[in-house]
Order: sequence, then C-alpha cells, then structure tokens
Amino acid sequence: KKVAVLPGDGIGPEIVEQAVRVLHQVEKKFGCSLEFSYGMIGGGAIDRAGTPLPDETLQLCKQCDAVLLGAVGGPAWDHYPPEIRPEKALLQLRKELGLFSNLRPVMQFDGLESSSALRPEVIKDVDLVVVRELTGGIYFGEKTRINTPDGEVASDLLIYHEYEVERIVRQAFEIAEKRRKKVTSVDKANVLESSRLWRKVAEKVSQEYPDVTLEHMLVDNCAMQIVQRPSTFDVLVTENMFGDILSDEAAVLSGSIGLLPSASLGRGTFGLYEPVHGSAPDIAGQGVANPAATLLSAAMMLRYSFGYHEAANAVEEAVKQVIAKGFRTPDLIKEGQIKMAVDTEEFGALVIKEID
Amino acid sequence: KKVAVLPGDGIGPEIVEQAVRVLHQVEKKFGCSLEFSYGMIGGGAIDRAGTPLPDETLQLCKQCDAVLLGAVGGPAWDHYPPEIRPEKALLQLRKELGLFSNLRPVMQFDGLESSSALRPEVIKDVDLVVVRELTGGIYFGEKTRINTPDGEVASDLLIYHEYEVERIVRQAFEIAEKRRKKVTSVDKANVLESSRLWRKVAEKVSQEYPDVTLEHMLVDNCAMQIVQRPSTFDVLVTENMFGDILSDEAAVLSGSIGLLPSASLGRGTFGLYEPVHGSAPDIAGQGVANPAATLLSAAMMLRYSFGYHEAANAVEEAVKQVIAKGFRTPDLIKEGQIKMAVDTEEFGALVIKEID
Ligand SMILES: CC(C)[C@H](C(=O)O)[C@@H](O)C(=O)O
Ligand SMILES: CC(C)[C@H](C(=O)O)[C@@H](O)C(=O)O
Repeated sequence: KKVAVLPGDGIGPEIVEQAVRVLHQVEKKFGCSLEFSYGMIGGGAIDRAGTPLPDETLQLCKQCDAVLLGAVGGPAWDHYPPEIRPEKALLQLRKELGLFSNLRPVMQFDGLESSSALRPEVIKDVDLVVVRELTGGIYFGEKTRINTPDGEVASDLLIYHEYEVERIVRQAFEIAEKRRKKVTSVDKANVLESSRLWRKVAEKVSQEYPDVTLEHMLVDNCAMQIVQRPSTFDVLVTENMFGDILSDEAAVLSGSIGLLPSASLGRGTFGLYEPVHGSAPDIAGQGVANPAATLLSAAMMLRYSFGYHEAANAVEEAVKQVIAKGFRTPDLIKEGQIKMAVDTEEFGALVIKEID
Repeated sequence: KKVAVLPGDGIGPEIVEQAVRVLHQVEKKFGCSLEFSYGMIGGGAIDRAGTPLPDETLQLCKQCDAVLLGAVGGPAWDHYPPEIRPEKALLQLRKELGLFSNLRPVMQFDGLESSSALRPEVIKDVDLVVVRELTGGIYFGEKTRINTPDGEVASDLLIYHEYEVERIVRQAFEIAEKRRKKVTSVDKANVLESSRLWRKVAEKVSQEYPDVTLEHMLVDNCAMQIVQRPSTFDVLVTENMFGDILSDEAAVLSGSIGLLPSASLGRGTFGLYEPVHGSAPDIAGQGVANPAATLLSAAMMLRYSFGYHEAANAVEEAVKQVIAKGFRTPDLIKEGQIKMAVDTEEFGALVIKEID
C-alpha cells in the first residue's frame, strides 16, 4: 500500500514523523507493508515552489492509496492573496481527489474527563461522528467582488446538486447502520432553499434504511444541543459550511482538539487523513506538539483505506492507553495538575511500545 | 410611548402577558406612560388571516415606537410552503422595519451556575454580547431551485454590500466603547469572498475607535472558543447566518435559553424585542413557561427604545433577584434539586413585587 505523506507547515512535520514511526511499528507487528513517499504542501510549498499545491504533490497523491497530511498555514502567509494561501491547497486537494466526505469522530478518552470545558455528566457517553460534505456548497460556489458607486459588493453562492446531497447522506446512513442507527441531518430549511433540497433528499435516502432513524435539526438548535445534550447524537450529517462550524464545536467535547482525527473520503477506498487541529505555529519546532490526533488519523487510514481493522484497533487502543496511563503532552496539562509530561517524540515512543 | 404587542404562537401569549403586567408596574413606579396595541403574527395569523404577517400588523408596528414579540411557529405549520410559514413573518418584519442589527447579551445569573452544561470555572465572568447582522447575507440573497436532467439543483446567495457591513460593525464598536472595549469580528475570510470584504470593512471602521481592540476570528474557531474560553469575549460581531448559529450556541452559557433576551435595532431608537427562545409548543397553554427572557427583552426595550435606563435596570435587577432567591419555573429545575417551583404567572408577580 502506498501512502503519500504531506507534513506541511508548523507542527505538521513533527507530528507526522511520529505517525510514520508508529506505522512502521504496525508493519512489523502485523506483517503488512507500506510504502511512504513525501510531498510538499501549504506555506512551505508556496515558499519553495510558488504554489500551495505543486503539481508533483497532486500527482503523487493520485498515485497513492492514501494521503497522510500534517497541517498547513501560519502567520507568514496570512496576507497572501486567497489563491496562494496555504489553505487553498486543502480545498484543491479535496476537489481534485473527489473527497466529498469528511468524517470526524468525537470520542471520550479515559483520564481526560477533567480537561473538558463541559461537565463530566454532560460528556459522559459521548460517541458521535460528524459527516461533513466537503466538495460542494458555499466553499466552491461562484464568488464575486465588484465595485459600485455605493462601495464594494461581495458574494458567495451556496449551491447543491441533488446527487451531491444524496451521496453524502447515503454515506451517513451506511455509517449509522454500523453504529447506534441514528442520523441527525442538520440544515436551515426554514430559511435556505438549498437546505430544503437537502432535507428532501435526506428523507428520500432514509427510505432505503428502515432500521436507521432520521431526525432533522436546524443548525442553530444543533449548535446548542451539541453542548447541552451531546450524548444523544450518533451520526450528524450536514453541508460543508455547517459541518466546518459544528465539527469544530463538537471537538470541544473531547477535552482537547489535539486528540481528534479526520478522514476525507470519496468513492472507493482512497482517502486523505489529517488531524482536526491546525498547524499551531506558536509551538512549532519545539518538539512538544501532541501527535495523538495524527496517530488516530493514521489508524483511520489503516481502517478505511487499507481495511487493516486489527492494526487500526491496535493503534487506537495504544493511543488511548498511553493517555489513560497519565502521559501528557503540554497541551493536556492543566495548571496545578501532576501528570507525566512527555514531548512529541516520547509520546510516539510510548504508543509504539504499547502496540508491541 | 407606543408599544406594538405581538404575542404570537405557543407560549408567546403567556410570557408576553407577564411582560405587559411588569411594564404596567414600571409605569406606576416610574411615572412613565406606555400605550399597548395588540397585533397578530405567525401561525395564528396564518390561520386567521392567511398570512404570517398581516398588513395591519406591519402598519401597527410602523406606528409604534417599539415592538414586543413573543414567539412564532409550531408543528401545525411546519409543512406549509416557505412563503406562508410563521418564521417568514420575522424575516419580513426585520426587513420592512430596517432592523439590521440583532443584539443578544449573554450573562450569568446568580444561583444558576449549576444549570449550565459547562463547568462553573469556565462560565465564571461570562458577559458578552453577540451583534448579529439581521437584514442581509444569505437569508435575503437570491434563492433558486431548478430541475435538470441530473436532478434538482438549489442555491442561496450570500451577498453583502459594504454599507451593510459598515453600519453593523460600527454599532458593535459603539457598544464595545461602553463595555470592555473589545470587538471580535467573526468571519470565514480564508474561504469566503464576502468574509474578506467583511474583514476589510471591520479594519476600516476600527480606525475610528482607537481605544477599542479589534480581533478577527474564523467562525469554526469561534464555535470552539465560545465553549472553551467564553469569558474572553466582550462584543462579537458577525454576519446573519454565523450570528444565528453562534448566538444560539452562546445561549448555552447562561444555563438556560429561557433566560435570554434580544433586541433588533435599526436607525434611530425604534426596536423589536423578543426572547431568544422559541414558541415551545410542547408546553404551551399550561402556564408553566419561563417569562424571564421576555421580561428581560422588555427591559431592553425600556433602555434602547425609550431611554428609561432606571426602569430598565429595575426590571433586570428584579428578574435576577427572583432567580437568586431560588424561585424557578420548571425548565430551570433539575431532577433531585429542591427549589421553589413557580408557574409563569407567579414568576411575573414576584418580579412585580421586586420592582415595587
Ligand atoms: C482551512 C480551511 C479551509 C478548512 C475548512 O474550513 O474546510 C479547515 O477549517 C477545515 O475544517 O479543514
Ligand atoms: C426562525 C428563524 C428564521 C430565525 C433566524 O434564523 O433568524 C431564528 O432562528 C432566530 O434566530 O431569530
């Protein structure tokens, strides 16, 4: 199996390095064989190649079975024009590789209950997945910016085709079938036409899954319920922009965004795997970044792109064990808490030992 | 001063009734004189007049100095076409009355710390206002729905004119000047053209307020920060859709959405005041709805539309006192808690006694 490795900017290289180490351990332990090829992406690619997504990187991804990505972006490129910003590479990759679906599981970690902003009784039993549409909607609709005698006018078009809604909603149902059999479809159908189409398609698809319950929820209400009653959700499915907002909000439930993985999938088994968190330029290069989210993203790759379920479970278990045993990178240490502090590399080593 | 009273649907009439009683007490106590005229709106108006916003209601509002609204909507009208849904009345009212700004203060109530899904140390010192743009953006941009050989396509246009952004951002700065002097402008400038215009205008306006700090925050990050670090916010300003989502999310910080008021303002002192919560059809007519949010909305009316600051403070203080003394409508009573249970009418009476 071929893996394109795109470390990116900020803490990207450090955390991806640990993921690759852990994957080497997986090869040893489970007798599978992975081939890693590295590519440039993001700000580093802008500096060296003049574009956030060089063509070689895109070609590399297309030749591989999966992509493992660190993070992109940083203050150095914040004032670049939109077309050559680091984030543009993510949007292009998603579109070019047909990755229409972004999965973000949100789970609890033993020993981290006290890191959450939420009360223990609220986050107890939280186990949900946000399924976000990733290649449509307002992210990719036409944009305009014009000058008028009365000043500037800017617009973005939120547009969905029926087939785009159908495939993402269907995926949510497929996932829900293997879980607690509940899909919450989030929209703003009382205001948006695109949401009314979304709701209609969700209803239609739901007919094919009689054993899965479909509920519709307005996005404003959902933003409230995610904090108030998070354990009532199983699979949330929603359009690109709402998914961006709600999945980041839901990340808070786990106590740290440094722990959450994501998978971006399309047709077939190809996928792109990356942590939910960003490039954290403030702590880059210090070797203290939390690699857990990237390790868990690698586990998702083993599961979804390679079908190595046993290996995926082993990596997930190992990460959870290391945390449960009390080892903490600095982001997880609250003032006054006595914990076993570790750096990025030590965390990776502990996970490797755990898998062994 | 003339007040248009629009009780609306569900619990609307019950809670508005208490607000009017309390305002009568304010008249007595502070020697001001208010004139109340009632109008139909929402589902009830659909049933009786065939439209959620009858022309008489709109004319009534235009002849008054302020509007006090209960809530609209309910399952009975959920399957009506978009044009004759109860919510449509709100959108029309906002547009027709030029109410481009929606203020939602989020505060803490003594004695309710334990009702929040968040930890006490997280919500401690929370005191923020969400300033939401209310008559522009994707709510009012062009909508399309077409059939193609490949299925349906639906779209909504997110569009902003410079002047629309300018007036709302300016208002946020005006409010911040009287508070902790910090404005957080929320956008998605790394993806949306309208957000890039928004950010540019925010920068420009900020030049006029050298003593107020402006920070920009991406909406996904903000959805996370509202839960994780709510006390770091003072004034949040954002576009219509983001504001809808974030203000409902922020409502959780207070422990109950049943407590939060809102003001919708335009040019001049005219305003529309309504609770943040909805029409709660499940408990309508039982006399157990929490009127606090409506009473606090009436207080905002006294302050913003009539300039009766003393009376406004008195109502706010009275509501807070009644809660601090332990009186609770059912929505605020957690299982196992011993509190002094009251119904809608009793709560109103307690507030009146407190003002006296
Ligand atoms: C960087 C940005 C374009 C991106 C998005 O909004 O999709 C990020 O926030 C994410 O969620 O992956
Ligand atoms: C009912 C709906 C149209 C409305 C909105 O989204 O503006 C409501 O959610 C609100 O926030 O006042």
